[in-house]
Amino acid sequence: MAKEITSRTEDYSQWYLDIVHKARLADNSPVRGCMVIKPHGFAIWELMRDALDGMFKATGHVNAYFPLFIPKSFLSKEAKHVEGFAQECAVVTHYRLKTVGDTAETRQVVVDPEAKLEEELIVRPTSETIIWNTYRDWIQSYRDLPILLNQWANVVRWEMRTRPFLRTAEFLWQEGHTAHSSANEAMEEARKMLEVYATFAEEYMAMPVIKGVKTENERFAGADETFCIEALMQDGKALQAGTSHFLGQNFAKAFDVTFLNKENQQEYVWATSWGVSTRLVGGLIMTHSDDDGLVLPPKLAPIQVVIVPIPKPGPELEAASEKIAQALRARGIRVKVDNDDQNRPGFKFAEYEMIGVPVRLGLGMRDLEAGQVEVARRDTKTKENVPLEKIDQHVFELLEEIQKNLFERARAYRDAHITRVDHWDAFEQTLEEKGGFISAHWDGTTETEKEIKERTKATIRCIPLDAEEEEGVCILSGKPSRRRVLFARAY
Amino acid sequence: MAKEITSRTEDYSQWYLDIVHKARLADNSPVRGCMVIKPHGFAIWELMRDALDGMFKATGHVNAYFPLFIPKSFLSKEAKHVEGFAQECAVVTHYRLKTVGDTAETRQVVVDPEAKLEEELIVRPTSETIIWNTYRDWIQSYRDLPILLNQWANVVRWEMRTRPFLRTAEFLWQEGHTAHSSANEAMEEARKMLEVYATFAEEYMAMPVIKGVKTENERFAGADETFCIEALMQDGKALQAGTSHFLGQNFAKAFDVTFLNKENQQEYVWATSWGVSTRLVGGLIMTHSDDDGLVLPPKLAPIQVVIVPIPKPGPELEAASEKIAQALRARGIRVKVDNDDQNRPGFKFAEYEMIGVPVRLGLGMRDLEAGQVEVARRDTKTKENVPLEKIDQHVFELLEEIQKNLFERARAYRDAHITRVDHWDAFEQTLEEKGGFISAHWDGTTETEKEIKERTKATIRCIPLDAEEEEGVCILSGKPSRRRVLFARAY
Repeated sequence: MAKEITSRTEDYSQWYLDIVHKARLADNSPVRGCMVIKPHGFAIWELMRDALDGMFKATGHVNAYFPLFIPKSFLSKEAKHVEGFAQECAVVTHYRLKTVGDTAETRQVVVDPEAKLEEELIVRPTSETIIWNTYRDWIQSYRDLPILLNQWANVVRWEMRTRPFLRTAEFLWQEGHTAHSSANEAMEEARKMLEVYATFAEEYMAMPVIKGVKTENERFAGADETFCIEALMQDGKALQAGTSHFLGQNFAKAFDVTFLNKENQQEYVWATSWGVSTRLVGGLIMTHSDDDGLVLPPKLAPIQVVIVPIPKPGPELEAASEKIAQALRARGIRVKVDNDDQNRPGFKFAEYEMIGVPVRLGLGMRDLEAGQVEVARRDTKTKENVPLEKIDQHVFELLEEIQKNLFERARAYRDAHITRVDHWDAFEQTLEEKGGFISAHWDGTTETEKEIKERTKATIRCIPLDAEEEEGVCILSGKPSRRRVLFARAY
Repeated sequence: MAKEITSRTEDYSQWYLDIVHKARLADNSPVRGCMVIKPHGFAIWELMRDALDGMFKATGHVNAYFPLFIPKSFLSKEAKHVEGFAQECAVVTHYRLKTVGDTAETRQVVVDPEAKLEEELIVRPTSETIIWNTYRDWIQSYRDLPILLNQWANVVRWEMRTRPFLRTAEFLWQEGHTAHSSANEAMEEARKMLEVYATFAEEYMAMPVIKGVKTENERFAGADETFCIEALMQDGKALQAGTSHFLGQNFAKAFDVTFLNKENQQEYVWATSWGVSTRLVGGLIMTHSDDDGLVLPPKLAPIQVVIVPIPKPGPELEAASEKIAQALRARGIRVKVDNDDQNRPGFKFAEYEMIGVPVRLGLGMRDLEAGQVEVARRDTKTKENVPLEKIDQHVFELLEEIQKNLFERARAYRDAHITRVDHWDAFEQTLEEKGGFISAHWDGTTETEKEIKERTKATIRCIPLDAEEEEGVCILSGKPSRRRVLFARAY
């Protein structure tokens, strides 16, 4: 594999696409805006999914599955939701094709005009409507609550500008949909799942995040409050990595879902929804990778360690490699032994750097005789010789260290890119020259927020949950403000 | 939960629907032919998926993900495939909606006629076409082969008559798609995956299956050979539980996928595909369940053991239950302790019978004093008292015994329902009075096969792989035949 990727300084956007393709994460597809997730990319997503799924189940959630299609009329039932989602959707209008033409050359498939649906079906852009339509049948009394449900699914939003993982017409995600008997309990759930996402992002993805709440303007269509985790990419742009919504009683009212409370009165049910998607793979790439390719935190690396016999495999080296591999596997480490004899070590090294294998062991006959093995780290590009008898313990600890190092490195970068700004000129200058998050005062109006976005392309990423009260004046309008919010240009 | 399910003898079809609903496996949905898979049903599917996924990975396969949508023109590229699949499909024709009306009462969502797709997109009924279109870019030389790939996905076929799990418009499945450099290797793969399916069906689902090959008439549209596993349900009807196809070079030719072979010549690539779906959940229900509800083999039971304090929970009983639960969990057993204090034991017992929990432990104060616990089996409905100090070992072995017993019971039933028949009258009579598989001679023509189906609704389920050569005459036409095939009415 030739190491021909564009450098980040040259063209960050192209660098990202190069990583996606050369690290064999995804391919373009013949369907506009849809990608093919290749085995290496999908293996990363599987590790994410399994970790998240375990965290959801540990917090009492169960999985279920709702239909891919949503009757068109459902989308119009919740006033705000319809504006946000009944827009760029895939619409199914017919249910049959027919073939015309008898030969391979003339054969053609056409839509059968007779087979038109009475009501069009929308490929789900999100499932609140069909799920709350179902909850009406599931919920009668407070004893049926809470419902703590999650779904792993594909969804479709007809995006005009797409980019693999970050924004695609079809993407994979999970969507939690819970139902509660009180506003407090629902709010607690929304915050709890935000914590789950933050923990996952930091402990698995080694991606530091800021927990916050969205402004009204950036809220999910149909939510009373949207919580989010925001991460910072290496080009200084922010990425919304996950959202958790307190939906109030909006969907319960739209779909007439009531319950008999303990006081024997009918009450509308309280709701949350929360989701993360394959977009996280894009965030993972842009948080850690470098000009040599993908860099993966060990917890999400499909191959954590590769063993390469040097200069090529032979019976003794293969036996020694297999022995090391077994010792590592016994500690739960995912190992590959590369016994391919067609390519030279240099080629292989570049290949494993490209696909982001955290640790590479190089083993030659001389090493074997000296009772040692060469250990190379992907994150720092450093090497050292390690005694063979200690290799399993060493690698075990090294993987933990790499996981920690990647997080610390990303956090240092992120922290160095949060700038407190108190004047408009500095705001614009910081955005242009440094990027990152800008912590600034804002007067709380949607009008000002939109004006800032129009002038600078920066949006309010969130009002951090830990934002302290502080008297100040809005960066643009000069009107009074009580706390700082975080601005950034974002993906 | 009231135990109001129809008995099998009264109305088998209604019994099945009752189990699906009362055991909380699935619900109907507002979308024609689509179901909501409820948490208990989905947990069973997750256990199936995880077991199969492990088996696929152990045989060298990796997962990937291809787009939900297939350009309409792709379906017309393979001559037989188009006939089989370009029929009852969900067709996406538009990509935008717009809202009209200003108030909640008048608001309506309509399809935007301006947003018509240039080429319609089909919601995948199966993914051969889009995958082989992609393989063209992935495969250049024999060194790129084999590709051993699997995908877990939802697919849509616009079925007119649907039944939860057994036949739904949308269903969940896995589809393996492999590419090989020789016909032999591809054929070996197709047979290997058939073995994986058979092993899974028998060892996990405790559902005995017959491995066979389909007649040309029953073959997958686009395959040169279709292998299948066929199971027998309790009403004497057969269920096709999984298929594995040798696709020859059909899709490679349709999508122009060639490789440079070791002799330095361009050659079309050889292919297989294979799949099982949520239909297996239907097969599982109909193989083991009874008039009291669902019966699950322990390996696929989301809850394997439930502990019920009798007559109701209290500090001592809860502590003792938790201690037993921990001992069982330490052996990898999935346990629930039911500390609900609203319902009486009799109600709970019926409930756990209904949802198919294999083992129920009843623990009262008198049991505790006597140092014992009551152990009830779901499969045989028998009970015994077991000393507390042996309970974990006992239950561990009991779960294995139940798994085995269910398989043996189902196999005895199946074996008793394979009837060798040599005359047409006996063929019709057996079908009417006994059902099951009929082993009979057939002249090998599609004409006779269709005539038999028309007269009796019985189809040739398969030519068993272990069918011995035997001279005979066709049950219908009287023409010579060399081996028996298996007929049955089928789901």
